[in-house]
Amino acid sequence: MNKNIVIIGAVSLGPKAAARLKRLQPDARVTMVDQENLVSYSCGGIPMFLSGDISEPEGLITNNFQTLRYEKYYTHVLDVTLLRNTRALKIDRQKKEVLIQSLPNGKQEVLPYDNLVVATGKRPKPFTVPGFDLPGVLDVYSLKNAAAVKERIVKEGVEKAVIIGGGFTGLETAQSLMEMWGIQTTVVEMSDQLLPGYLSLNMAAALRRHVEDKGLIVRTGAKVLRLEGNGSVQRVVTDKGTIETDLVIVATGVEPNSDLAREAGLEVSPGGAIVVNKRMQTSDPLIYAGGDCVEIPNLVTGRPGYFPWPSLAQRQGRVIGTNLAGEKAEFKGAVGNFAAKFFDKSVACAGLNIAAAGREGFDAVNIMVSQLERAHFWPVKDFMFLDLVVEKETGTVLGIQGMADSGDGLVGRINTVAAILESKPTASDIGNLEIAYSPQFSGAMDIVNTLGNYAENVILGKGATINADELQKILHDKDNKDWVVIDARFDHEAEPYVQKNPGIWKNISVTEVLARKDEIPRDKKIILLCKTGERSYDFQVVVNQMGIKENYNLQGGVLFLWRLGVISESGDLGD
Amino acid sequence: MNKNIVIIGAVSLGPKAAARLKRLQPDARVTMVDQENLVSYSCGGIPMFLSGDISEPEGLITNNFQTLRYEKYYTHVLDVTLLRNTRALKIDRQKKEVLIQSLPNGKQEVLPYDNLVVATGKRPKPFTVPGFDLPGVLDVYSLKNAAAVKERIVKEGVEKAVIIGGGFTGLETAQSLMEMWGIQTTVVEMSDQLLPGYLSLNMAAALRRHVEDKGLIVRTGAKVLRLEGNGSVQRVVTDKGTIETDLVIVATGVEPNSDLAREAGLEVSPGGAIVVNKRMQTSDPLIYAGGDCVEIPNLVTGRPGYFPWPSLAQRQGRVIGTNLAGEKAEFKGAVGNFAAKFFDKSVACAGLNIAAAGREGFDAVNIMVSQLERAHFWPVKDFMFLDLVVEKETGTVLGIQGMADSGDGLVGRINTVAAILESKPTASDIGNLEIAYSPQFSGAMDIVNTLGNYAENVILGKGATINADELQKILHDKDNKDWVVIDARFDHEAEPYVQKNPGIWKNISVTEVLARKDEIPRDKKIILLCKTGERSYDFQVVVNQMGIKENYNLQGGVLFLWRLGVISESGDLGD
Repeated sequence: MNKNIVIIGAVSLGPKAAARLKRLQPDARVTMVDQENLVSYSCGGIPMFLSGDISEPEGLITNNFQTLRYEKYYTHVLDVTLLRNTRALKIDRQKKEVLIQSLPNGKQEVLPYDNLVVATGKRPKPFTVPGFDLPGVLDVYSLKNAAAVKERIVKEGVEKAVIIGGGFTGLETAQSLMEMWGIQTTVVEMSDQLLPGYLSLNMAAALRRHVEDKGLIVRTGAKVLRLEGNGSVQRVVTDKGTIETDLVIVATGVEPNSDLAREAGLEVSPGGAIVVNKRMQTSDPLIYAGGDCVEIPNLVTGRPGYFPWPSLAQRQGRVIGTNLAGEKAEFKGAVGNFAAKFFDKSVACAGLNIAAAGREGFDAVNIMVSQLERAHFWPVKDFMFLDLVVEKETGTVLGIQGMADSGDGLVGRINTVAAILESKPTASDIGNLEIAYSPQFSGAMDIVNTLGNYAENVILGKGATINADELQKILHDKDNKDWVVIDARFDHEAEPYVQKNPGIWKNISVTEVLARKDEIPRDKKIILLCKTGERSYDFQVVVNQMGIKENYNLQGGVLFLWRLGVISESGDLGD
Repeated sequence: MNKNIVIIGAVSLGPKAAARLKRLQPDARVTMVDQENLVSYSCGGIPMFLSGDISEPEGLITNNFQTLRYEKYYTHVLDVTLLRNTRALKIDRQKKEVLIQSLPNGKQEVLPYDNLVVATGKRPKPFTVPGFDLPGVLDVYSLKNAAAVKERIVKEGVEKAVIIGGGFTGLETAQSLMEMWGIQTTVVEMSDQLLPGYLSLNMAAALRRHVEDKGLIVRTGAKVLRLEGNGSVQRVVTDKGTIETDLVIVATGVEPNSDLAREAGLEVSPGGAIVVNKRMQTSDPLIYAGGDCVEIPNLVTGRPGYFPWPSLAQRQGRVIGTNLAGEKAEFKGAVGNFAAKFFDKSVACAGLNIAAAGREGFDAVNIMVSQLERAHFWPVKDFMFLDLVVEKETGTVLGIQGMADSGDGLVGRINTVAAILESKPTASDIGNLEIAYSPQFSGAMDIVNTLGNYAENVILGKGATINADELQKILHDKDNKDWVVIDARFDHEAEPYVQKNPGIWKNISVTEVLARKDEIPRDKKIILLCKTGERSYDFQVVVNQMGIKENYNLQGGVLFLWRLGVISESGDLGD
């Protein structure tokens, strides 16, 4: 009892661990140090601070009941000593001491500990292209740095900005700059898609289309060679051309900030993350660590994963607090479950996308469906796209992702599948997931169930599929003689498409599939499609039954082609 | 191959089984019979048909692509023979035949089968109070019956209606009658709450308050003795008084329609449900049954359950179709997962409520929290209430329910917990559920996580709680000398409450809890509260630490008291 607890880092995990411990053991002596002045803030709100929805940094430092956390809460409610602007210089595990230094006055002091919590968080990955240190090259990975960006915008009158990195942080930052400040913004991404590692190629392409419609300039597959400028950054030079700019935000990702732990001899992974057990203890059982500086089990792959996400830091902080109080708690890991809204489209994803599944050694396919979010007879018509990643051999689901206008409905569905991902569900389990049915919230066969059932059909070989990008190539191939598209929609829906795409585009409504069987060509490879893929699947049953081998149902249907701009609603081919 | 399949019943499960079978085995010969003219409709849409949002019954018989299912789909796409207005009279299991009769011409015929599917659905529970057969006494449990209600409203000009039964069907019907037709509507419910069997007493009281605010008259704890009227129903006589009316809708629940199966010697449960195995086979393995006429495992209790819900019928239909095609599929059961919206409030629930848990022999508690649905700094402020039912001894979660304005967010969270209910999660598992974090969709500690953590704290004895109805009694007890309320909100929030409730209501802001410890009375039982219960929980830690035993944190906070009308936002006591 009356143990001395020292916590290094006071953004997310540290404060949560402190609060939990003090609630369980009010007489514990807790000292929390952080080298910054701004602490105990909601990292997830940085885009809102940048966009101006939250005007002052302090807006992210209040809690639910509008109390500045560090002003009153730690001292007057929790009785925790909070030392801001104080850097931890060294952990002496033999003496069980931490050497700290006050940054304002340089004074050093030694804090003895019975238990120590290392919550040193993340830092930007090294970004060292020539010109990286020019004024006007900033990042938004901390509230302090985000405040510097905002200050520059206000003081310097930024007209153009380049964001390096098309991940969550990059896109959120781009949206903030555009919506609030009217800045002409370009995102430069090295890989060939936005949100690499999260979205499938096709889903990312649909998102790209949307953000471009909103005015964001996107350059994928472009490597930044150097930054140039006179006094401050003026140009981003890439291998695909040069972009004029007044501001560069580096959003190329983060890495664990584990130097202090490493120097103290604690075990650190090759990737730089502190290694912890399920109780969040480091290789020194007196020292706990958690949040953005540790690795945790990836519950899909079974291997260590790095998930620098504030919600996970909170949960880990609670586990550490419980363990510090002498009780037993474990944090089992994460599947990775993310959501964001970019302009009018929400995206969410859990587990592995198809590319990540491949990298992890799985032989997997991804299956996409589009369906109304609510019952088909409900007056509000929101379409949703969901994509399921399934291991071919076993039918095990490895991940799910989606895009929709209605974010709450999408996120709810991704959460639902995320909750069972660690138990290795099969596609069939997803088909039978017990989604509450009420017409205003779901279909009797909800899109999640359709997705699972369809994925099961595909991996059992009951119907081959084709993706939008593959169809796009075929449609643009002027020499095509092998392929024909059969549009299973009604005549009035299909007619403009047939007229504008002569030769390749034929129409046989699904309701005539049996009567007009003989018109189905036997000498071509067939792409079947309808608005969503549902009617064309019924059509495909007949085509398969006829013994025509090369036939493919378009995933996501014409609706998804529209979202990609592959074809317009009036049947005109896009670029 | 080329087996004869006969399906009795063509509303939900029958058509799904037929479609699935034909997609897997296009050469199967399928005959589906139904005694009604209206078949293959979306039962879930009956309230919308009643309200006039869907004008004709056919509006519920189209599918996603606006095809009347029975006109074209069965014949022209699936090649299924559909016999409407045809009653199955007898199953002869020896001869493997079904005797059917055409209702229009009385002609009988024998259909031989290799496999039979019994999908005879549900029927209203017997309602036999005197006057039950008066004209104007109707139900809405089938589209045909709902059409009769609508016809009566249009032709007879109904001004007042009484709904007998305050379950989902009763409340949905009440809303339809009120919103579309302006009918003064009274719901009479025998038990002491709305949605008995689904919501907790307190959650139901909050819903009741809302529907009453919208104009619905609610009479709970009232038993209908008889219906009276001259030529048609005019009065509902209950043990709590008589209600004048032009129309009575009996919504007292349904039971399995299993006569045909019973007469054929198939095993039927004491409750009248056909008994099936996981492959949905009856006691005669050649005969399958599913949907509203069977019982399925309740995955929370492990005992048979009756869940007459169209979404479950769909899933079971697919399982039957797969098995009919010679493949293997199983339906494992359900936890019971329901959602609905009544006026501006959505409710959803999965698993057992506290009363049902008690009936099933569990020693359980229910824990409620209120929290913002999104991050506290996100500008849209939707509060959500969630209630978790937990077994005391083991911490096992038995059920969850909630109420919110934002239905999609609520339903998503209930779905998420429902998905893992069968795996017997603990409160701690709910506290660690990986809800995707993004400020516009959730908190870093989402309400689901708060709920799990709080429930864990309560069952581990870290803080006793009190419910709104118990507090209400204390506040109305003029002789109270034992209890004091300590309001942990800020002074400006608490002041009117202190003034208007002298003696009992004291204010010590949580930020002063340590400084003003001595003002906490040691000679009274203490109720702690704040807006949501969060600040008062931090307060409770201190009170516990002081050794004051009788102290209770108000579940759901002042916010929930407002919703119940226990106290107004300006501190006035309600009725």
